[in-house]
Amino acid sequence: MDRSDFTEKKVVFEEKMSWLQEKLQQMGSLVEEAIANSIDALKRQDLELARAVINGDDIIDNLEHEIEEKILEVIATQQPMARDLRRVVTLFKMISDLERMADYATSISQITLRIADQPLIKPLVDIPRMAILSQKMVKQALDAYVREDVELAAAVGQDDDEVDKLFGQIFRELLTVMMENPKTITQATQLLFVGRWLERISDHATNIAEEVIFLVTGEKRNLNE
Amino acid sequence: MDRSDFTEKKVVFEEKMSWLQEKLQQMGSLVEEAIANSIDALKRQDLELARAVINGDDIIDNLEHEIEEKILEVIATQQPMARDLRRVVTLFKMISDLERMADYATSISQITLRIADQPLIKPLVDIPRMAILSQKMVKQALDAYVREDVELAAAVGQDDDEVDKLFGQIFRELLTVMMENPKTITQATQLLFVGRWLERISDHATNIAEEVIFLVTGEKRNLNE
Repeated sequence: MDRSDFTEKKVVFEEKMSWLQEKLQQMGSLVEEAIANSIDALKRQDLELARAVINGDDIIDNLEHEIEEKILEVIATQQPMARDLRRVVTLFKMISDLERMADYATSISQITLRIADQPLIKPLVDIPRMAILSQKMVKQALDAYVREDVELAAAVGQDDDEVDKLFGQIFRELLTVMMENPKTITQATQLLFVGRWLERISDHATNIAEEVIFLVTGEKRNLNE
Repeated sequence: MDRSDFTEKKVVFEEKMSWLQEKLQQMGSLVEEAIANSIDALKRQDLELARAVINGDDIIDNLEHEIEEKILEVIATQQPMARDLRRVVTLFKMISDLERMADYATSISQITLRIADQPLIKPLVDIPRMAILSQKMVKQALDAYVREDVELAAAVGQDDDEVDKLFGQIFRELLTVMMENPKTITQATQLLFVGRWLERISDHATNIAEEVIFLVTGEKRNLNE
């Protein structure tokens, strides 16, 4: 392959990468929205919105498959090497993380439907806080990928610590509520799961951030301690 | 590329695939063992075994990275096309599922350490049952991949339904225990999480089974309903 062929191939590859990154951002926005809506629906016991989150999961799944197919096509036709191959593979892993996050948003909405027959045992404060942080983490992790920004990726890990702390608080609070009033147990255990799912969502955002750091520096850093 | 080059390339590729599949089985065995040990440690409150599960997670993570690097090398040097590329990519996704399962086994062992200061509120029966089923699912899903056996993969989905049913049972039982005796709440919520993690483990086995079906038939089937 002479030099001009090489340049041309690289141009085509970068075009395909731009397309993929655009789709990634699109998927990321849908996931952020699903997280926000799932908690909003829970907080306001808005069953219609909860159902919309559940139904919207198919769109996210389809987008994942579309991106996946395109990635395979890029690998097969462009045969990226070394760092370019790793960029593509990182993308492949990221969409899997995003898809899992959307699954958790769906699980949260299923809980909203499940506990719809009674008012909330307490106004939700820390759970929405966890959700806002998780969303921010998703956004930052994707931005870190696009800009290949290691510092921004590391910041995602700091927010993850904050999410873990909030979950610890929620956990202790809900245990107290249950012990004081066993009638709250059924709903409180469901709210505990909501907290756990948000924690898992933030773990997936942290995964993405770690993948970005590995892509840029070649270093396997564990942000989730 | 003439015919003999092509054949030679295919032979090299299949050699590398054999190596990868062997490593995959190795990783699968470690994950099955981690699941079994995590539940055994919980049941017998064996803290040493719980710690061994937690420490063993690094070995599984390292194996994942080793396989991942090899997969990238195979893609870069062998440039597999069409179905061979999909075989490699399926493997790539499977090791990520396996790694997540090991994380859940670690989470279960952390719970074992957390509730070590008091005896179990009840002998565990259904949780070990869930664990045995989950392990079987992992084994079958990997066998289905190696043999490209769609029927075996579909059977994994049936076991997943069984796991979900067991979890429903565990959930109702633990709620009753908590309501009757609020002193059990702290431990019972931890046991609820153990049930959830096992359910997630079986979901990941089901993911693998779905990936196998997609690889063999090109059909996206949802086994997890």
